[in-house]
Amino acid sequence: MFENKFLKQRNLPNSSSAWSYAKTIIPGGGQLLSKKAERFLPDQWPSYYQKAKGYHVWDLDNIKYADFAQMGVGSCIHGYANPIINKKVIKSIRNGSMSSLNSYEEIELAERLLDLHPYSSMARFARTGGEACSIAVRIARAASGKDGVAFCGYHGWHDWYISANIQDSENLNNQLLSGLNPDGVPKELAGTTFPFLYNDFDSLDIIEKNKTNIGVVIMEPIRGVPPLPGFLEKVREICDKIGAVFIIDEVTSGFRTNAGGWHLLAGVNPDMSIFGKALGNGFPISAVIGTKEVMENATKSFISSTMWTERVGFTAAVANIDMFLKEKSHEKLIFNGKMIKSAWKNSAEKTGINVSVSGLDPLASLKFIDGNENVYQTYYAQEMMKVKFLVGSSAYSCANYSSSILKKFENNTSEVFDKMKKLIDKGEKIENHINGGIIKTSFKRLNG
Amino acid sequence: MFENKFLKQRNLPNSSSAWSYAKTIIPGGGQLLSKKAERFLPDQWPSYYQKAKGYHVWDLDNIKYADFAQMGVGSCIHGYANPIINKKVIKSIRNGSMSSLNSYEEIELAERLLDLHPYSSMARFARTGGEACSIAVRIARAASGKDGVAFCGYHGWHDWYISANIQDSENLNNQLLSGLNPDGVPKELAGTTFPFLYNDFDSLDIIEKNKTNIGVVIMEPIRGVPPLPGFLEKVREICDKIGAVFIIDEVTSGFRTNAGGWHLLAGVNPDMSIFGKALGNGFPISAVIGTKEVMENATKSFISSTMWTERVGFTAAVANIDMFLKEKSHEKLIFNGKMIKSAWKNSAEKTGINVSVSGLDPLASLKFIDGNENVYQTYYAQEMMKVKFLVGSSAYSCANYSSSILKKFENNTSEVFDKMKKLIDKGEKIENHINGGIIKTSFKRLNG
Repeated sequence: MFENKFLKQRNLPNSSSAWSYAKTIIPGGGQLLSKKAERFLPDQWPSYYQKAKGYHVWDLDNIKYADFAQMGVGSCIHGYANPIINKKVIKSIRNGSMSSLNSYEEIELAERLLDLHPYSSMARFARTGGEACSIAVRIARAASGKDGVAFCGYHGWHDWYISANIQDSENLNNQLLSGLNPDGVPKELAGTTFPFLYNDFDSLDIIEKNKTNIGVVIMEPIRGVPPLPGFLEKVREICDKIGAVFIIDEVTSGFRTNAGGWHLLAGVNPDMSIFGKALGNGFPISAVIGTKEVMENATKSFISSTMWTERVGFTAAVANIDMFLKEKSHEKLIFNGKMIKSAWKNSAEKTGINVSVSGLDPLASLKFIDGNENVYQTYYAQEMMKVKFLVGSSAYSCANYSSSILKKFENNTSEVFDKMKKLIDKGEKIENHINGGIIKTSFKRLNG
Repeated sequence: MFENKFLKQRNLPNSSSAWSYAKTIIPGGGQLLSKKAERFLPDQWPSYYQKAKGYHVWDLDNIKYADFAQMGVGSCIHGYANPIINKKVIKSIRNGSMSSLNSYEEIELAERLLDLHPYSSMARFARTGGEACSIAVRIARAASGKDGVAFCGYHGWHDWYISANIQDSENLNNQLLSGLNPDGVPKELAGTTFPFLYNDFDSLDIIEKNKTNIGVVIMEPIRGVPPLPGFLEKVREICDKIGAVFIIDEVTSGFRTNAGGWHLLAGVNPDMSIFGKALGNGFPISAVIGTKEVMENATKSFISSTMWTERVGFTAAVANIDMFLKEKSHEKLIFNGKMIKSAWKNSAEKTGINVSVSGLDPLASLKFIDGNENVYQTYYAQEMMKVKFLVGSSAYSCANYSSSILKKFENNTSEVFDKMKKLIDKGEKIENHINGGIIKTSFKRLNG
């Protein structure tokens, strides 16, 4: 029988139980809200992996799953442990991933990103998406000379962003998560941010009304549905009018439907854009690019970190971009994403379970409509886990899903939906068929 | 003849010239102020490496140097491309360095750090030292319910820290760098920080005077010289008195003179401590640890990032700590650091060049006293480079310097000091013997 040393040493019965143990020494259990067991399948989710390869993960009990949940929260577009990217990364490591000198690969990465985004001519790098957003906001504030930031969407954990909930505790409800409290963020930042709503032209009024304060406008270019005709153009126009730096945050959307930022498809040029997540196929790297005029303001400010100079992130990102361009990975990401969406839709139609399917093809979302959506979602995840699939309420596409695994995903989804429908038709409560807790979605319940 | 593809493709004549090219597409040239050519040897510094192994680096012209400058800005205490650490990291990469599940190695790393620091019982992780400081301050503010932060020393590039120069543009002169302007940091943060000076008991008055505002006191435990008897104890006492969270920032000092934070040697327990730099032997990883009472406040706040969950950082840090404990690396770091210091002192005495040598043994500093210190330092770096040593005005120790390279370092240093002395005695100006610019030290000149 398989025996995991890590579990045995700690007297933990299985992979899933390691999560409760982690919560005793790591507040909240881990470093990322999106990887919490409570979001997928409370008390049953395997939570930890020992091996990941392609689209498969092996938990600490050595059970192998096909990952149709998040593929590393969207970071691993070319699959886990991609052999070509890993080969280059391992070579970098064998040749020293750090030194007192700089990595020339950071120049190569800058060139790649600037080539893909012709309006940009300078780049800076960090390790996480949140850091990159903070760097971009710092540079943009320095460039415009105004502190106010108008924003739309999710831009990380940093003070400048979370401070939005100081003036109004519901400011972030439609941008990130409901119930976020700004504890630990200085009250002095109240009033420095101005949220506007995606695809809501009227909500843009707040920017012009506060034009003397607002020097930065930052937004995600696409959220679920494409922007309405003229929406990005209108934001660009307002920025030019009021003298604000326009930043497009591509941390979530970049390198999915096309090589580079999604905004390239829209044909709207921001002054800066931000990349993370998919940029390094799971190796920590993030980037800020922009016009020379704006980016040069970085030299006015102290923006510096030892770990930003490490080689692996640059090597991985260069290899990842080269692979994306060579293999036209967006075509596969879109195709596979469409297959996931149609698996959900077909299963729903076939069984009479009511769902709504939305989102970018490579970042598809599922929502159960009738009954308690969280209960249904929990049941779906539980039953799919039994047939060795990890699923969540959204799925990031991966370029190397095979047609057979996509077919199997659809078949298994259909079977689970069918089982669910039969229980409902019998008048049974789905919650009575769940062997643990129900998934949670608000911040307070997730982190409580 | 050796030909570097990267240089050739870009029509760059040599490794050193790549730095000027980088500045055209990366504002400031790179991601870290401490790796700027202008700080070591303007116009001549090799700036980029292709390979690093042990204490050697090879620049893009394939010239091999012994690194007595900064050993990856202090991150590579066990040498570049350490075979034992690399082996574990490469295994992690082959087995997938990212997945939708968490890395169990983060639990192992938490356990290691908590074991070494018995006052602590919870840990959080990030990728860079600056991020870890921001996380610690966020948690501490949430715990104390007060926004004001008293600080001493260097704590990264983030808004909360750089804002110190808004109220007084000289606040950071003695903590970090002179001439730092707070462009891009919101003016609203003016007055949220309260700097105090290392080993200056009187400067602590500011904390008690502002006790209603100050909820966080963060400091580096050692800066050059050890803290005066009672200094750390006094800060601890004030924190308890005013209800502030006491954070010790070990990003620079941790894992050098002892396993874990330097504060363990002082016997003073903070509420939280922060690790970075040396923690992962050059792989990006940083940590915040602390008491359960304080750390649990992390769950009140949104502190979350995809890249913080990547496996390599945890694997590297666990391997690095295990090696540190097994090999008692601090003994080697101290011994080798003492040898560097005595090389400078002996060379000075032998030749009559006047220098002051200071700092922790594993983080030694050199300062030329007579004449223009920057000119002398530049000449020293230039002449040492000719004999294939990289040197700066400070040297981080490395556990694997050999006795022969340390001897060679002393001999070469003596020869350069001797040459310098002879030039001075002949009434020659040292600057006339420098084939490029003179090193710069203020922020404005460095980043201009």
